Amino acid sequence: MSTRLDEFQSYRSRLNERIGEIDHLGIKRFFNLDTHAYQDGALPSKTKELLGLVASMVLRCNDCIDYHILQCMEAGWEDAELFDAFNVALVVGGSIVIPHLRHAVETVDLYRQMKSG
Amino acid sequence: MSTRLDEFQSYRSRLNERIGEIDHLGIKRFFNLDTHAYQDGALPSKTKELLGLVASMVLRCNDCIDYHILQCMEAGWEDAELFDAFNVALVVGGSIVIPHLRHAVETVDLYRQMKSG
Amino acid sequence: MSTRLDEFQSYRSRLNERIGEIDHLGIKRFFNLDTHAYQDGALPSKTKELLGLVASMVLRCNDCIDYHILQCMEAGWEDAELFDAFNVALVVGGSIVIPHLRHAVETVDLYRQMKSG
Amino acid sequence: MSTRLDEFQSYRSRLNERIGEIDHLGIKRFFNLDTHAYQDGALPSKTKELLGLVASMVLRCNDCIDYHILQCMEAGWEDAELFDAFNVALVVGGSIVIPHLRHAVETVDLYRQMKSG
Amino acid sequence: MSTRLDEFQSYRSRLNERIGEIDHLGIKRFFNLDTHAYQDGALPSKTKELLGLVASMVLRCNDCIDYHILQCMEAGWEDAELFDAFNVALVVGGSIVIPHLRHAVETVDLYRQMKSG
Amino acid sequence: MSTRLDEFQSYRSRLNERIGEIDHLGIKRFFNLDTHAYQDGALPSKTKELLGLVASMVLRCNDCIDYHILQCMEAGWEDAELFDAFNVALVVGGSIVIPHLRHAVETVDLYRQMKSG
Repeated sequence: MSTRLDEFQSYRSRLNERIGEIDHLGIKRFFNLDTHAYQDGALPSKTKELLGLVASMVLRCNDCIDYHILQCMEAGWEDAELFDAFNVALVVGGSIVIPHLRHAVETVDLYRQMKSG
Repeated sequence: MSTRLDEFQSYRSRLNERIGEIDHLGIKRFFNLDTHAYQDGALPSKTKELLGLVASMVLRCNDCIDYHILQCMEAGWEDAELFDAFNVALVVGGSIVIPHLRHAVETVDLYRQMKSG
Repeated sequence: MSTRLDEFQSYRSRLNERIGEIDHLGIKRFFNLDTHAYQDGALPSKTKELLGLVASMVLRCNDCIDYHILQCMEAGWEDAELFDAFNVALVVGGSIVIPHLRHAVETVDLYRQMKSG
Repeated sequence: MSTRLDEFQSYRSRLNERIGEIDHLGIKRFFNLDTHAYQDGALPSKTKELLGLVASMVLRCNDCIDYHILQCMEAGWEDAELFDAFNVALVVGGSIVIPHLRHAVETVDLYRQMKSG
Repeated sequence: MSTRLDEFQSYRSRLNERIGEIDHLGIKRFFNLDTHAYQDGALPSKTKELLGLVASMVLRCNDCIDYHILQCMEAGWEDAELFDAFNVALVVGGSIVIPHLRHAVETVDLYRQMKSG
Repeated sequence: MSTRLDEFQSYRSRLNERIGEIDHLGIKRFFNLDTHAYQDGALPSKTKELLGLVASMVLRCNDCIDYHILQCMEAGWEDAELFDAFNVALVVGGSIVIPHLRHAVETVDLYRQMKSG
């Protein structure tokens, strides 16, 4: 069982719900736009999730990394493929990405354990 | 004919050559690592180039965007697929990415003209 | 007459039109969202334009700075108020913002000349 | 009662005091400059706090966001006005800002509870 | 005793080991490159560690800051010298660096306590 | 003769003078603070200029890079030492720094030519 991933998911859901209650038209539209950006289009959803993951790594946002790793793993990306994408992010973003690489590798492991647990 | 792309390629080649002359072991190894990061591995080279392009867009580097667009187009990505990747970068990175979206779209057009010219 | 501002406006219009032709639903919606974000709401449009300007300065994007300065000046912000906002951006973002402060001050001057010319 | 805000305030005070003890002239002057940047000038203090908040959101710094939200709420900004400013930050900074939007909305709620508690 | 530094070191070691197990050639080479970048060359290692520290501060990465502070203190930099380097980072990076300045000052203190403890 | 460096110096002087005319107390104090940050203190000025250069490279600001390279070369840093510092910036900041590495190497060459010309 992964406490860290559970807490992230639960915090994320709770606050996203609270943001929904605010009922700000612009914010709601942004959330819709964000969801749509990863759906099948000229590029398949699976590819777009990997793009979102690498973008999150070079911008160094752990919550975004966790979210996109879960999406990528649900979409069927294998560990070796994720690690290869991590490498692109590492080379583009430099050693400042390393703490987020550590976080990302841990998330992949936690997710596999959660699924097999 | 694209003056802008020609000038970029020529400047890039000239300075990369000059950097080679410096003969700094760390810098040379970094350039090798950078080249290798986009070669076929668990992920195909074509996918990795698209990852590099989106990373360049959210980090807002026009020279990197131009380089990766050329690599992506050589690798066979269609315009509609590139635009769909641009959209992911736009949503992740926000309106601050828009000037780089303009630049990227212009580069796609210049490259197609150059190829057909 | 300001060649720099004219060229920026003309380049921006030409490429935005080209982006419109691409007809990507996500990109079109993002542009709409971007426009709506600065319209009167709980905060008046005038205040939002100043928020957009400071955000552009700390994120160090000259094209975004130019765009928001023009919007701010059309909305009625005085030079002294803009300079006071520049100071907030400078303190938050640090000396790395200075080249963009120079650019911003030049844009304010060019715009005043253009209006009085 | 808000444990998170209390801990932040207490940590912030303790370390700022420690930084004062270091007695580095440059650092002390920077802290003064930072304080002065948000005082009434050509723009009123209230407006500048909102500028500081949006700058903090697009630069994605939770501690800075918390600090400026408290300042903004003390200065009299209403929740709806803060959410409208959050929307500008979200559109400028993109989905990478969303985790910080969640944090910011939680801080607004925690602060209101603390005041009414 | 410093719980925070101990936990960081232990987490860092455990995950770096896990990353080693992945056995991705690019990632391994990047880690080597990273290690080599701080070894004696035209510049002595001690100077390079200070460069790495300031780079980490302006890029606002607490884990990187902690790592480089420990390296800098092992290399013999005095507190007053570190604080002077912090000031450069603060001026270049702006008030957004302040939360990381607090973290950095706390790390220096924790490390001195750990050594004398 | 270096047109690029001359134009940069002339533009920088002209706009800094214009910023001085604005006579904004906060901005003037920031410029003073910035100047003082690189003067001899616990660390010698020469070391601080190198810190400022590496900070400018990882934050990817060409004007800041040019300014600090000139300061570093005036302070007596040799080319090989500068290249070793560039390598630290490259490893910390990643391949996104490469266009700025090209710019920096060109600036070093232009400055040497200007001095010997």
